[in-house]
Amino acid sequence: MKIVCPGSYDPVTNGHIDVFARGLRLADEIVVAVVHNPSKRGTFPVGQRVELIREALRAEPATAEAVEAGRIVIDDVPGGLLVDYCERIGAAAVLKGLRSGTDFAYELPMALMNRHLTELETVFIPGDPAYEHVSSSLVREVHGLGGDVSGLVPDGVLAALNALRG
Amino acid sequence: MKIVCPGSYDPVTNGHIDVFARGLRLADEIVVAVVHNPSKRGTFPVGQRVELIREALRAEPATAEAVEAGRIVIDDVPGGLLVDYCERIGAAAVLKGLRSGTDFAYELPMALMNRHLTELETVFIPGDPAYEHVSSSLVREVHGLGGDVSGLVPDGVLAALNALRG
Amino acid sequence: MKIVCPGSYDPVTNGHIDVFARGLRLADEIVVAVVHNPSKRGTFPVGQRVELIREALRAEPATAEAVEAGRIVIDDVPGGLLVDYCERIGAAAVLKGLRSGTDFAYELPMALMNRHLTELETVFIPGDPAYEHVSSSLVREVHGLGGDVSGLVPDGVLAALNALRG
Amino acid sequence: MKIVCPGSYDPVTNGHIDVFARGLRLADEIVVAVVHNPSKRGTFPVGQRVELIREALRAEPATAEAVEAGRIVIDDVPGGLLVDYCERIGAAAVLKGLRSGTDFAYELPMALMNRHLTELETVFIPGDPAYEHVSSSLVREVHGLGGDVSGLVPDGVLAALNALRG
Amino acid sequence: MKIVCPGSYDPVTNGHIDVFARGLRLADEIVVAVVHNPSKRGTFPVGQRVELIREALRAEPATAEAVEAGRIVIDDVPGGLLVDYCERIGAAAVLKGLRSGTDFAYELPMALMNRHLTELETVFIPGDPAYEHVSSSLVREVHGLGGDVSGLVPDGVLAALNALRG
Amino acid sequence: MKIVCPGSYDPVTNGHIDVFARGLRLADEIVVAVVHNPSKRGTFPVGQRVELIREALRAEPATAEAVEAGRIVIDDVPGGLLVDYCERIGAAAVLKGLRSGTDFAYELPMALMNRHLTELETVFIPGDPAYEHVSSSLVREVHGLGGDVSGLVPDGVLAALNALRG
Repeated sequence: MKIVCPGSYDPVTNGHIDVFARGLRLADEIVVAVVHNPSKRGTFPVGQRVELIREALRAEPATAEAVEAGRIVIDDVPGGLLVDYCERIGAAAVLKGLRSGTDFAYELPMALMNRHLTELETVFIPGDPAYEHVSSSLVREVHGLGGDVSGLVPDGVLAALNALRG
Repeated sequence: MKIVCPGSYDPVTNGHIDVFARGLRLADEIVVAVVHNPSKRGTFPVGQRVELIREALRAEPATAEAVEAGRIVIDDVPGGLLVDYCERIGAAAVLKGLRSGTDFAYELPMALMNRHLTELETVFIPGDPAYEHVSSSLVREVHGLGGDVSGLVPDGVLAALNALRG
Repeated sequence: MKIVCPGSYDPVTNGHIDVFARGLRLADEIVVAVVHNPSKRGTFPVGQRVELIREALRAEPATAEAVEAGRIVIDDVPGGLLVDYCERIGAAAVLKGLRSGTDFAYELPMALMNRHLTELETVFIPGDPAYEHVSSSLVREVHGLGGDVSGLVPDGVLAALNALRG
Repeated sequence: MKIVCPGSYDPVTNGHIDVFARGLRLADEIVVAVVHNPSKRGTFPVGQRVELIREALRAEPATAEAVEAGRIVIDDVPGGLLVDYCERIGAAAVLKGLRSGTDFAYELPMALMNRHLTELETVFIPGDPAYEHVSSSLVREVHGLGGDVSGLVPDGVLAALNALRG
Repeated sequence: MKIVCPGSYDPVTNGHIDVFARGLRLADEIVVAVVHNPSKRGTFPVGQRVELIREALRAEPATAEAVEAGRIVIDDVPGGLLVDYCERIGAAAVLKGLRSGTDFAYELPMALMNRHLTELETVFIPGDPAYEHVSSSLVREVHGLGGDVSGLVPDGVLAALNALRG
Repeated sequence: MKIVCPGSYDPVTNGHIDVFARGLRLADEIVVAVVHNPSKRGTFPVGQRVELIREALRAEPATAEAVEAGRIVIDDVPGGLLVDYCERIGAAAVLKGLRSGTDFAYELPMALMNRHLTELETVFIPGDPAYEHVSSSLVREVHGLGGDVSGLVPDGVLAALNALRG
């Protein structure tokens, strides 16, 4: 089974990497879909986001082999409906980490809409509680104010964030 | 009893129509209040939103007779306090469909504020689970990306959305 | 419209009375249904529960007139399906006060089941925040441990609770 | 991948069958684990619960073929730790349907505990909203009070419930 | 112990004042930190927000003495990390009033992040239900539409809001 | 300030110990109140529960000194109202760890009731996410089924649980 992990990953966090690693135990192939709106610029350009994910997956023992074997693929998805993208690449389901019941309430309408549109399933796994407070936006905000986010993001992301401050 | 269903209805969905139809079993008269900010333009102009609701109510067996009999009225409300509007038209309560506990948490402060201001009551009914994922904003987004929202909105709304695409 | 307020009311609290009073603004007739299981004895026998409600409604200015006029009726309902009872007495809806999103999550399956069975509607109104912590069971527990529950229950209930301590 | 759907299934509902059917799209093999406490008797004996599930899976087009092909297996699990059972049969994950954020909050501690014990994953899929109000206990209660639960449970379960009534 | 109550307080409400008053029972010193972004203008300039808080604390019997005694201090905090500010002034914890489980879900990631950064604790107290619907933004909106917010904000704030209307 | 941590602690877990340790940073004195119903026997007799807490506090670096200095006291509370107990020992507040928004919803009515009765405050701190799945009841259940709960409870508790298995 091929499963898609969509997100803006601006930037990827250790919480995301944990979900990818655990997804490998559930699916034959994981596609990390870096969804972005070509007309908006994020904190990092989409090409750099893809590279930061790749680098982190190679550095992480739980995913390094899978990325070499092509069991984790990173793709740049410029908008459009997620269900169309999943149909195009032959993915049976979307995988999301849930940090809380609030996360579930937020994700539920989109999951039901995707089932309505093409019967695409959404599969949720509880996030590692160690990363319950870690989101891309909070990481960006804390780092932007001078806080130390090491341990919350891969080393390459930390370096890239520091370069931004430059 | 006269009851008000406020919303921006940009556009009306089948979830809204279901709430109106069920409201008819609870109240003598339903006023669908299309609340809008005259200085902001939505996806549809307010006049068209009103027309799309009227058309849908006429097409729906559960509401057609009531709309003819004047038991459902559609009104264009250009801002101002909802409690003032309700006082002006002599409505005893506001009616809202709830899709989830999260919806309730969102609606509660406004409902309490309205009671504080004029003792206006807010009455909640659970939405039909078949429309749990249906909101005006998600419908607009999915349709804008090329998704098929038939079954989620009245036929007239579908036509109007398609006309937008040009 | 006739509306039913079901509960065990063992005993009735000021939070319940507030819901009844507000229900009078929404419905022509309120039936307070004291649901009980004939094979189980509660804290108060069902006949006394009915009397305590009647007494409280007569003492409360917002309900006194309605109880005289027969707009609030108290009924003893010995088990069975609520939808059958509502059909028998010709009630269109059930009315419940909600203290929180958790309350809604608890009530939702029963409300959906009732709609599935006979299209009986359930109507929720937010409880008065002043009674957010007031439930029959917490009142019984606190009073049983010697706590002062005056202000949380009608005077007659307070007297009845004190008589229990005897 | 082999995935386990644990539950007491006393009795199985259409909501459960829907989760099994959708699980087939996510896993190579589904094991429906009928967990029971040998010292307690439920509404139906465990052997009958297993039979009712098998019969329902054979009657349902989405699962009939898979049950013949051995892709869905039903097992009787007399207590013990779920993680031990999963290890014994070589299952990588548990699959659960979620009806609401409240369901998630309830399931989360057990899911985290299972990960703590053996890294067993728990995978959640949103339940079909059409079955949001359907649980084994509510079905038993409503049927016991004379309510019609057809459409909520498989035909065989309906017959078995009726047989209980004698 | 010194405890910090951070917020934008644009403007302070009676709900905030209640939290400050109750905080005095829990801590030796309360610092009300008026956090603002120097590059953005709110409804009231930060200096006026500070003055409105001071005036309200002097007018409120539960806090008047403490403000004279220097047990409540009001500070203007121009951005930066809250943990750095707390370290600088030697505060052991942040104090927040919670109106609902939704409030908690919103506050939790920031609280966990602050513990991660410097072990700064966040302490929550349940808000007074009488102010459950009172937030600075809803007060501004309702007042802006002509609603009467007396009883929800200190007298000085009411006067300042009226002055805005010109 | 003196603060009370009430619970049945049957048995104490590492999540509880973490809350006690963090409470020391917020209060001058912590009273761990082992609340029990003299007419019911738990898994461990109340005397043993007290001893297991004392032993764990002495073994934990973050609390060892405080327990020697009398800043943490363990008390056996045989029922009665918590507010009466707090008044008797001169405690200003109750301290509770929160694992989730659901925990808060559960605790809120009791906290509001305690404020209603004697203005006793309840102070919540977010639990360490590492112990999000750890409750006395889940620990007992998992250990009873042969699961390894080391790391979730203090060493002494683990020994006591093993002794139960005999």
